[in-house]
Amino acid sequence: MKKAVVLLSGGLDSTTTLFLALSRGYKVNCLIFDYGQRHKKEIGRAKEIACRQGCRYKIIKFNLPWPAGALVGKKTKIPLGRDLRQIPKKIPATYVPARNTIFLSFALSWAEAIGAGAVFIGANSTDYSGYPDCRPKYFSTFRKLAGLATKSGPGRAKIKILTPLGRKSKAQIVRMGKKLGVRFKMTWSCYKGTKYPCGRCDSCLLRAKGFRQAGMRDPLYEERKGL
Amino acid sequence: MKKAVVLLSGGLDSTTTLFLALSRGYKVNCLIFDYGQRHKKEIGRAKEIACRQGCRYKIIKFNLPWPAGALVGKKTKIPLGRDLRQIPKKIPATYVPARNTIFLSFALSWAEAIGAGAVFIGANSTDYSGYPDCRPKYFSTFRKLAGLATKSGPGRAKIKILTPLGRKSKAQIVRMGKKLGVRFKMTWSCYKGTKYPCGRCDSCLLRAKGFRQAGMRDPLYEERKGL
Repeated sequence: MKKAVVLLSGGLDSTTTLFLALSRGYKVNCLIFDYGQRHKKEIGRAKEIACRQGCRYKIIKFNLPWPAGALVGKKTKIPLGRDLRQIPKKIPATYVPARNTIFLSFALSWAEAIGAGAVFIGANSTDYSGYPDCRPKYFSTFRKLAGLATKSGPGRAKIKILTPLGRKSKAQIVRMGKKLGVRFKMTWSCYKGTKYPCGRCDSCLLRAKGFRQAGMRDPLYEERKGL
Repeated sequence: MKKAVVLLSGGLDSTTTLFLALSRGYKVNCLIFDYGQRHKKEIGRAKEIACRQGCRYKIIKFNLPWPAGALVGKKTKIPLGRDLRQIPKKIPATYVPARNTIFLSFALSWAEAIGAGAVFIGANSTDYSGYPDCRPKYFSTFRKLAGLATKSGPGRAKIKILTPLGRKSKAQIVRMGKKLGVRFKMTWSCYKGTKYPCGRCDSCLLRAKGFRQAGMRDPLYEERKGL
């Protein structure tokens, strides 16, 4: 059975990506990161989602002991209520330097160690926060790197770096998730680690836009409203 | 003053690289990794070396919870007494999957966070262990990735990934280290974490070759012999 490593944060995008990898017949190994993020809550969700889908998961724990943005430090505030049209145009305070490179390098290590042929990452660059390491060109270069960074040769296939959500809009991702059977209520997107999603950070705003444009209700947010 | 991040393991190559960066006028920030390596001893050496040179250092601690080779697991033995000519031809059991990619991604994160223009890594590919992520082509691809993975734009220079030891032989590195004032006795190369270097692992063998070909005595090994 073909093996894959899926980067799983417990959010809408990575969970949809996990379901997609499963639907393609991969035996999935979920990689979860505990990197000092404010929204530690997502780790619990990710574990639960992996378990429910019968996937093995591993958690990598590390700290970034330098100024690494609003998601990991209390000094910088998470921007709230931004204009949706402005979101992808400017790199926001929530940007964590080189985060995707760190995440992907661990995924590459695990994939190589177990002979997995693919790494899935749910990054996308349409309804996104403008992070530089979410752009298609970044991933095409990481793909090249993956081939050079690891063992290769007869009998060993190169490790593919797959971004199936690539240029999809949030609405398309929501629809895809629904089709694949994602239980949206279990996912967590909000940058704040509070009981209910704040509804105002970039991540909440983009998620809400996705559900709105897909003409669907978000069960996670309805819970917040006490509906 | 121009800033740099130097990957420092406490070995011969990374210490020489640190001295080189200092000689080029960089204000150096040393990045040290505690990744479950057998030769934890190198961490102490790295800290000492950084302190003595008046450099700030940070230690990133993480585990690789998958089979990651003889350096981090007790299940695989460290190869001893290998034929020197064979060493670079076959990827040995000490290879840690994607280690340099993990190390460099953290370095990139720190460099971006503090506005450092350069990351130094002491990798070289002449008298080396045959690890895929030490090859020049690997680094040229990581260079491209660094430009795409991080913020860029007016007023922000790209982060350079420098491998000043590149294709140098171990003898050349030893000579360079001597010239720069490296105190070789303080460095640690042996893959085993024992009191004295084993003298038989690839790292010891390559180091000994370097000193021999440079016509110099290695003070660290003389200590072992009780000289």
